[in-house]
Amino acid sequence: MSAFGHPSRTVWVPADTPDTVRIIDQRQLPWRFVVEDLRSVEDVATAIREMHVRGAGCIGATAAYGMWLAATAGLDLASAAARLKATRPTAANLAWAVDRMRREGATLAAAETIAEEDAAACLAIGRHGFALLEARRQALGRPDQAPLNILTHCNAGWLAFVAHGSATAPVYAAHDAGRPVHVWVDETRPRNQGARLTAWELARHGVPHTVIADNAGGHLMQRGLVDLVITGADRVTRNGDAANKIGTYLKALAARDNHVPFHIAFPSSTLDWTLADGAGIPIEERAEDEVSQLEGPDDNGTLRTIRVSPPGSRCANPSFDVTPARLITSFITEKGVCEASEAGMRQAGL
Amino acid sequence: MSAFGHPSRTVWVPADTPDTVRIIDQRQLPWRFVVEDLRSVEDVATAIREMHVRGAGCIGATAAYGMWLAATAGLDLASAAARLKATRPTAANLAWAVDRMRREGATLAAAETIAEEDAAACLAIGRHGFALLEARRQALGRPDQAPLNILTHCNAGWLAFVAHGSATAPVYAAHDAGRPVHVWVDETRPRNQGARLTAWELARHGVPHTVIADNAGGHLMQRGLVDLVITGADRVTRNGDAANKIGTYLKALAARDNHVPFHIAFPSSTLDWTLADGAGIPIEERAEDEVSQLEGPDDNGTLRTIRVSPPGSRCANPSFDVTPARLITSFITEKGVCEASEAGMRQAGL
Repeated sequence: MSAFGHPSRTVWVPADTPDTVRIIDQRQLPWRFVVEDLRSVEDVATAIREMHVRGAGCIGATAAYGMWLAATAGLDLASAAARLKATRPTAANLAWAVDRMRREGATLAAAETIAEEDAAACLAIGRHGFALLEARRQALGRPDQAPLNILTHCNAGWLAFVAHGSATAPVYAAHDAGRPVHVWVDETRPRNQGARLTAWELARHGVPHTVIADNAGGHLMQRGLVDLVITGADRVTRNGDAANKIGTYLKALAARDNHVPFHIAFPSSTLDWTLADGAGIPIEERAEDEVSQLEGPDDNGTLRTIRVSPPGSRCANPSFDVTPARLITSFITEKGVCEASEAGMRQAGL
Repeated sequence: MSAFGHPSRTVWVPADTPDTVRIIDQRQLPWRFVVEDLRSVEDVATAIREMHVRGAGCIGATAAYGMWLAATAGLDLASAAARLKATRPTAANLAWAVDRMRREGATLAAAETIAEEDAAACLAIGRHGFALLEARRQALGRPDQAPLNILTHCNAGWLAFVAHGSATAPVYAAHDAGRPVHVWVDETRPRNQGARLTAWELARHGVPHTVIADNAGGHLMQRGLVDLVITGADRVTRNGDAANKIGTYLKALAARDNHVPFHIAFPSSTLDWTLADGAGIPIEERAEDEVSQLEGPDDNGTLRTIRVSPPGSRCANPSFDVTPARLITSFITEKGVCEASEAGMRQAGL
């Protein structure tokens, strides 16, 4: 994604710095672009837990590099794996990548392969998803010059993976092919990954978009202003239930009520065949201050943290919800577009 | 509501200051408690448009007092009425109160009657709603010492009316009767009336509550943590469709999907018999900076305004959505509890 004028990947090993993994510190976007060097499995665990990196594919690849750092340092790989897996409970990609690294020897080459595969899967998701966007344009009879309106929640973009993103890959593919698209970006409280990360990505790539409060999507669908929804997923179970950022379920309900197609895009590394359905997915409960406080620049560009709820009131912060398969029009994976069901996924070769 | 240690009403005429309407400047809550004196219809129009006061009943009563100020100043009442009605398009109470003041002579006594009736209606809503809460406790077999969990969106509280509130009146009634309640408070982006006003009200009244991101309610319902939902309304049409703060519709969908009763509480002044259904309700589109910026105190208590989305990204800010009657379990009005339909409302004597 050279249009960003930045590294084309969200996590990489710099050629000139031995035994180092470099990431973009996503907590600082969109206000500052800061890269951070991780030199130990401990650094990697902190970066994942405290969300310097986030997003299913990105934390998977970063954890894979973390296993390599652990091996390089001669650490016990079983405990390194346990440490990394404990950082965040919901995303399937994390455990998947760590387990694969254990099986494959925790080499740099194995980590690079995981990163390469993540980028390649997202590129394929973009290709398959673009075909879906074109089919939707045709079904709507949308003129060539009029944009297709896509709503997305949270950031399942370039930043959430090694490159391209899952939910945004079809958008970038369409935009790059000269097909007009416009994205409704849910700000995605409490951490505002939509307003902070997705909007930033789309702006840098020149994709027209509008940031909205998470509350607005249902109304926009009622008014016919959303042509389809695409989100990512953090874990998909055998029956096609999908855990994703808190609030995704509400948009799936609104899409169903307004006959708007609702797609979930993910690489197969997000699939958890071991769980029968979404009831078994652990839902991360994060700190209260993610709800009660917010950071951003004041008029002078100085970053400030302010309170947004009264000190005497408690907050709760469940970070993911589960969208039942029955509300999902289709999955978009590197293997193609398929029904959100075990049969559909098997048939697609997942 | 003397427990607040503040005036028991949200808008009143101070005994010692002639030709003045006093309000609480709700923009400054919960960080500062500031009252403001309005001395002209122009002051009143500004206070309503810029949301020093907000909430269906509160803006209705404030506008009524504004008509009195216009009459006192010898202004043309037709143009004063037009000016006041133009401030905010969605809430029915505003035009209702202004039209009634024109009919009844725009006297102080007429305005006081509107305010009295608003407070009395909310008290009756509290009584009827409390019975509904008790019935729900019984249906759930909830032990006496365990709280009933109520989710609300935005602020349909004391601050949104002249006193008591609509959605919160049953909660206060239950709490005051010693029945345990716990309220899930949607923060209600973009203006955060839930986090700023409802949480503040509930805290001052000693009602247990938890602030959540607007995204969280569906998940809490999936997990069985919400026993019922009560919201207010800004306009209810003849068929029972209800406009309320943006995002209400999403909670109604989630309530339906999880078999959680979804009630809307409002005084009859919110009813608009002239509109057949919600499609005719004008939806206010407010300024972008309500989405892109947020104000709150920093660690030192200094109020700061920060950006929460990148400067290069546009925002959209529709302020209300329409919940279709089919998703509403019942209405709670001063006339009792009824079905959300024309027949139901007629039968209740509305």
